[in-house]
Order: sequence, then structure tokens, then C-alpha cells
Amino acid sequence: MEIDVFATLNGIPDEAINNKTTIVVDVLRATTTITVALAAGCLEVIPVLSPEEAIEMRGRLEDERVLLGGERNAVKIPGFDLGNSPLEYTAEVVAGKRLIMTTTNGTRAIRRAAGGRQVVLGAMINAPAVARHVAAATTDITIVCAGTRDRFSLEDFLTAGLIVAELTDQGDFSLRDGALTARDYYYSHHSDLATAMKASFHGRLLAELGLEADMDFCAQVGTSDLVPVYSGGVIKKVG
Amino acid sequence: MEIDVFATLNGIPDEAINNKTTIVVDVLRATTTITVALAAGCLEVIPVLSPEEAIEMRGRLEDERVLLGGERNAVKIPGFDLGNSPLEYTAEVVAGKRLIMTTTNGTRAIRRAAGGRQVVLGAMINAPAVARHVAAATTDITIVCAGTRDRFSLEDFLTAGLIVAELTDQGDFSLRDGALTARDYYYSHHSDLATAMKASFHGRLLAELGLEADMDFCAQVGTSDLVPVYSGGVIKKVG
Repeated sequence: MEIDVFATLNGIPDEAINNKTTIVVDVLRATTTITVALAAGCLEVIPVLSPEEAIEMRGRLEDERVLLGGERNAVKIPGFDLGNSPLEYTAEVVAGKRLIMTTTNGTRAIRRAAGGRQVVLGAMINAPAVARHVAAATTDITIVCAGTRDRFSLEDFLTAGLIVAELTDQGDFSLRDGALTARDYYYSHHSDLATAMKASFHGRLLAELGLEADMDFCAQVGTSDLVPVYSGGVIKKVG
Repeated sequence: MEIDVFATLNGIPDEAINNKTTIVVDVLRATTTITVALAAGCLEVIPVLSPEEAIEMRGRLEDERVLLGGERNAVKIPGFDLGNSPLEYTAEVVAGKRLIMTTTNGTRAIRRAAGGRQVVLGAMINAPAVARHVAAATTDITIVCAGTRDRFSLEDFLTAGLIVAELTDQGDFSLRDGALTARDYYYSHHSDLATAMKASFHGRLLAELGLEADMDFCAQVGTSDLVPVYSGGVIKKVG
């Protein structure tokens, strides 16, 4: 089996998605936050592309359990129940709820990866669990970094490298250049992932907004065993 | 001024190309070979997308000085005068000639970068010269890695990192994540670039074809002062 990593979601050839196991990474903060929400008892997360689509869907679902979450430019969307900080998604707030979510890059990346045979969401907090889950896959594995507005995201590439490292610890894989480079990059920063993350464009933006605690949270490795899987337009925990 | 690096040529937002200084990198081997050819006295290089377009253009130009060069799957194209090895492009062969060239990834990348205010070709052999040339640019700098069939190329990212390192040695630049990560990756491999390059997908392909000498040549830093510039459909040396 082969592993490749794509640094941005645009321009990925269809052959790298179709019938592959795809792992979507938007570590700051969508895939971290969704993992946390599902671990806290949220029933499902419905990713949508725009705030308008989220509001329209809430109206259509007519379900009191629905919450709206997400951000634009890292800030909570007006009229939404929740922003995009994993620290907001506690059991008190989300257990037994359905979440409609839209984020700048993460939801677009999930949609792009949707042609995969299996679509999994990866972050640092669940990287070992994601690797254990997909290591038995009988298809090649494609890791899709959400990036930042079609540009390279340091923190997503670093997370992709961590997932590749976890996978190659567990089995024999052939690594394409993206995977080889990402793993190498992770190895050179594994002793202090939070510092590396804070040097990124997105990290500096979150720091300006006073969100260092979010980054420290997102930089923890393996604190969750939850693996979110996207299927039929909805994200649920695996199994 | 800002520097960013894109790992593949697809999906680059137009705003990162238009009115920017763009540097195209296809170190194995197109941008290395074109640099060598121009340094050896080749008058100009005309990049075209397909072998058919190259043959058609030769017929149309009716110029005895025209040579055809290029590869598909790293192998010389039938009927062409030259392949894509920099070692073939000696003064005896190319001085005073015009070269029509087509390569799998390099010529596509040059076309993609063509909207830049200034379009320069970069490799390891001319990285310091390229950095000196563009350091005075009054626009942001976008480095476009050709990649391999729309996938990440380790060797192009490494070369992009070298160019970023040369630039930041010469002046103050703000680095976007792609540039920051590429430079970091270069720093962790700068003591043995040839070995890093040979571990790449493309490197392994060239090794199978017995082309290690090409890679050792392409991994030399700063052996050429020539800066190729693409303008009006033609690549010439700067100045």
C-alpha cells in the first residue's frame, strides 16, 4: 500500500482520491474540534460550505437538537451557537446534539476528499487512533491537508507527517514524495509541535486573537481514541 | 516583500501569480538543463507542451539552428536531437542554436507561472544567482515547484527551500508557510542534498535508468551564475 500527502486541496488528481482511503487534516482547528465534539457525545456533524447553507439547513431539519458551529477568519459566525474552538465543545454543550458546521478550509477539504472509499478526519489528538484504524486498509492512503485558502499550511503538513510516522510504525507502506517529506518534517519538529505550529501563518493569526490555549490543545498527540468518519454527507464516530 | 512556495502547479490561486515575481523549479531536470544549455551558448529555449507541438514548430521556423530536446518518462523522445540530461547540453552541441523543449512537468510549470511580472527558472546550480537577481524585486515572490504529474516532488521542494534560504540571507522577507516549511526542510538536508534527492520518487526512477550522474550534477549548489528568464514565450539568459 502507498501513502501520499497533498499540501493543499486544489489540484489533487482524481486518481489520488477515488477508491482510496482519504484522511482530511485541518488541525487548526476543524478536524480537532470535530473529534472533540464527537468524543463529547455529539451525535453527528454535518459539514456545509457556507454560513447561509448552515442556516438554511437548520430551518429545514426542524430539530431542536441542532446546533450551528464554525468560523470565518477564525472568528465565530454571527448567529451561530458555537465557534471553532475545541474548548467550547464540552459534553454539557454538545452531548445528544446534531452539529451543522462550516469552516473556511476544513469543510471544503472534506468535500474534496469525499470520493474516497473511506473518508477519515485526522488531527494530532487522534493521530495514533486514525493510523490504527486505517493501517488495515486494503487501498492506498491519501492524506489531504486543508491548507489555508489554497496555500500551504505548515501545521497541516506537520500533522500529516505525524500520521505517516504512526502508520509506518505499524506496517510496511510505500511512501510517495509528499508522505516522505511530511514525515521527515515531522521528525525534525516532534519534540515541540506546539512551537512549530505557533510559527505558522494560522498560528500567528490565532495568537493575535488570544487563542494560544487552542493551539496547545491541538498540538497534543494521542489524547483521543476517537476516529471521525465522513459518509453520506455526515461525520460520525467510527463503528 | 513576501515569499511563498507551492508544491505543485495545479491549484495555485491566480493572486499568487499575477504581478508577482515567479520562480519555476523543476530541478530534475528541466530547469537545470535549460540553465546549462543557455550557459553553453544556446541562444534561446522555446518551451512547448507536447512533442507534436515541438515538431510542428520546428517545421514552421525553417531555421537550421533549431534543435529539439526533451523527455517523456525521463527518456529522450523519438526523433528528437537531445534528451533531458544536462550533461548532453555542451557548447559543442548547443552553442549558437535555438532549442525547442518539452518535458513532462517543467514546461507545464513554466506556462502556469507565465502570468508573473517576471518569470525566472531556478535550480540548485543557479540558486544563489537566482536569489541575487530577484532579491531586489519590488513584488512578492512565488516559487512554483513543477512536481511530478500533479504530485509533490521532494527534490523541487528542497530546491525551493534552498532558494528561500539564499533570499533570506540577503534581505528581510516575510515567509508564508510554504516558504517557511521548504526552508526548514532544506536546512535539515543541506549537508547532503544529493542523497536526499536520490530518495525521491523521481530520483529512484532516474537511478533505475542509470542516471545517477545527472542527479549528482543537479545537486551541486551555485556552480552557475546564469539566470534564465521566460518572456514572450521564450527563455533567454537575463540581461
